[in-house]
Amino acid sequence: MSRKKHSALSEKEGVKQPEFLSKKSAAFIKKRRQQTQEPEALVTEILKGNITALSQAITLIESTQPDHLQKANKIIMGCLPHSRKSVRVGITGIPGVGKSTFIEALGMQLINDNKKVAVLAVDPSSSVSKGSILGDKTRMESLVKSNKAFIRPSASGNSLGGVARKTRESIILCEAAGFDTILIETVGVGQSETAVHGMVDFFLLLKIAGAGDELQGIKRGIMEMADAIVINKADGDNITRAKNAKVDFSRALHLYPPKTSGWVPTVSLCSALENTGIKELWLTIEAFVQKTKISGHFESNRIDQNKQWLKQTIEDRITRNFYKRSEIKAELSKQIQLIEAGETTPFAAADYLLSL
Amino acid sequence: MSRKKHSALSEKEGVKQPEFLSKKSAAFIKKRRQQTQEPEALVTEILKGNITALSQAITLIESTQPDHLQKANKIIMGCLPHSRKSVRVGITGIPGVGKSTFIEALGMQLINDNKKVAVLAVDPSSSVSKGSILGDKTRMESLVKSNKAFIRPSASGNSLGGVARKTRESIILCEAAGFDTILIETVGVGQSETAVHGMVDFFLLLKIAGAGDELQGIKRGIMEMADAIVINKADGDNITRAKNAKVDFSRALHLYPPKTSGWVPTVSLCSALENTGIKELWLTIEAFVQKTKISGHFESNRIDQNKQWLKQTIEDRITRNFYKRSEIKAELSKQIQLIEAGETTPFAAADYLLSL
Repeated sequence: MSRKKHSALSEKEGVKQPEFLSKKSAAFIKKRRQQTQEPEALVTEILKGNITALSQAITLIESTQPDHLQKANKIIMGCLPHSRKSVRVGITGIPGVGKSTFIEALGMQLINDNKKVAVLAVDPSSSVSKGSILGDKTRMESLVKSNKAFIRPSASGNSLGGVARKTRESIILCEAAGFDTILIETVGVGQSETAVHGMVDFFLLLKIAGAGDELQGIKRGIMEMADAIVINKADGDNITRAKNAKVDFSRALHLYPPKTSGWVPTVSLCSALENTGIKELWLTIEAFVQKTKISGHFESNRIDQNKQWLKQTIEDRITRNFYKRSEIKAELSKQIQLIEAGETTPFAAADYLLSL
Repeated sequence: MSRKKHSALSEKEGVKQPEFLSKKSAAFIKKRRQQTQEPEALVTEILKGNITALSQAITLIESTQPDHLQKANKIIMGCLPHSRKSVRVGITGIPGVGKSTFIEALGMQLINDNKKVAVLAVDPSSSVSKGSILGDKTRMESLVKSNKAFIRPSASGNSLGGVARKTRESIILCEAAGFDTILIETVGVGQSETAVHGMVDFFLLLKIAGAGDELQGIKRGIMEMADAIVINKADGDNITRAKNAKVDFSRALHLYPPKTSGWVPTVSLCSALENTGIKELWLTIEAFVQKTKISGHFESNRIDQNKQWLKQTIEDRITRNFYKRSEIKAELSKQIQLIEAGETTPFAAADYLLSL
């Protein structure tokens, strides 16, 4: 696959033009590529599996320009009837657990199994570093080169809601483009994992033994969301520690209530570096999909997730609109001060603000 | 303490009138007791520690009549400057772990330590059974009789938000009446524990060994909220199993990230029946209070809780107002059907509903 198809990732290095093109021709091509195609044409191309069209459409989704958003909505509606056919896997873990190497290994495993893999990310913090997550392509060298893979860094944006929405809509487009496995990466800090958990079928928590990882960094509640805990870097001197960690996590998971899916979370070891445990993990995910499709949970979970997104989007928006009002802005901090001083209750303060 | 002072608990048996009163006198007394005193008079009485006045004021808080609510707000504002001086302890655990017996034992321990104990409850489900929780007074026989204890069953109501608000405002009144320890009971199912966790200084999870308790009933996330896990019924044949459970829970807690309070959750055994482990538990809670008051967490946590209640109350109300609108009611279910059929996205549906 040519570099062109991944131009969205090339922010740091820029797009190198082939030398045999005149400057004029290069400018012409550049301009043509910058022109956005019409929604209908993009949908047709996406359904053919055209990755350039897919990239362009996702760029429209990520844009904040009103006319882009309108086009994006048309594309999403055009792709919607052709979506929902993939397995969506969320992958989380704090920085340092080897997420990129793991995704590379898992992705190549899937491609060798003749699957088409899209890798997306949710990382609101990347708005600062413009796509820090998945930015380090050197760790996903083989996956980047494969024409059966599509890698897209996290959308930028200030709010998690906005970033998550863009990723969720991108899933629809990737599915319409024929990607049958969607891997969604997030860092295990902040609230982005809850958002990712709400858009995937299977949620995977990547860990490493030792390094204080058990005791810090991972947000409360994440372990309970996991369908699988995978202890990475189970290689070399690390194997014994990894095995001990496996026992600890298995024990801990036993203390949790059963999941509504009926699935019993697994704990396994892997080494993304030595490519061990990856195939077994995928078999586990396939077993999960088979089991939950038979029980009906797979479909009902997706419907529940959609309803949850509807609810969440409505509530985020009306709340944001409320706090944006100038009279609320003026009075909110005063009421908070009164609360801190013990001169009013939160309920009386709320009543007052709601009466404005 | 006479039964009169606990008349609010006597829904099932009714208030028996002493026989030597004439019917006329009885009717007069009954009428006088039903008359609500003016807010100012009630505040004065509450500050003197008058439990009848406290009960009447809480009844006003729990009322849905607008003029009662207005009076209630005046009383709360009058009590507010005299509140915040207690230790607030949340107690949760699924039915069958022996919460009532435990609260009786803990309460009596505190009373013997010369403390004044108020026991409140948050259980929205009790709106059906009208105070099922704490209703079984026979399990709290000594506590009910003590004049240093005040026991109030859960307010009834359809929404958790409403019930929680009433309990939270009742805390202020109890503190103003001189109760220095507030125990707030909830059942460990649904979302009421999250609400209780948001109104207490110390959160205690009551468990029993075996009986499948580890594997079911307790909602996800509760174990991570706990400042102490107490394994009750560690007596008789049960001691070995309870000790094993203690090891399991201690191990599991080690896998969690540290708490912002800096407190390391404890796991201990107790037998409310044999009164073992109760005193030690209270010493633990006192150590927590001392430590967090020194670090400043105790106060900052209360301020954070208040801000959270302000936010929550505002968001609940504006969301409820949105869904109450007739045009939303009419269109919401249609949009959900479209989502289920894969004919729209949650975001497009939200945009449409928000445009109405």
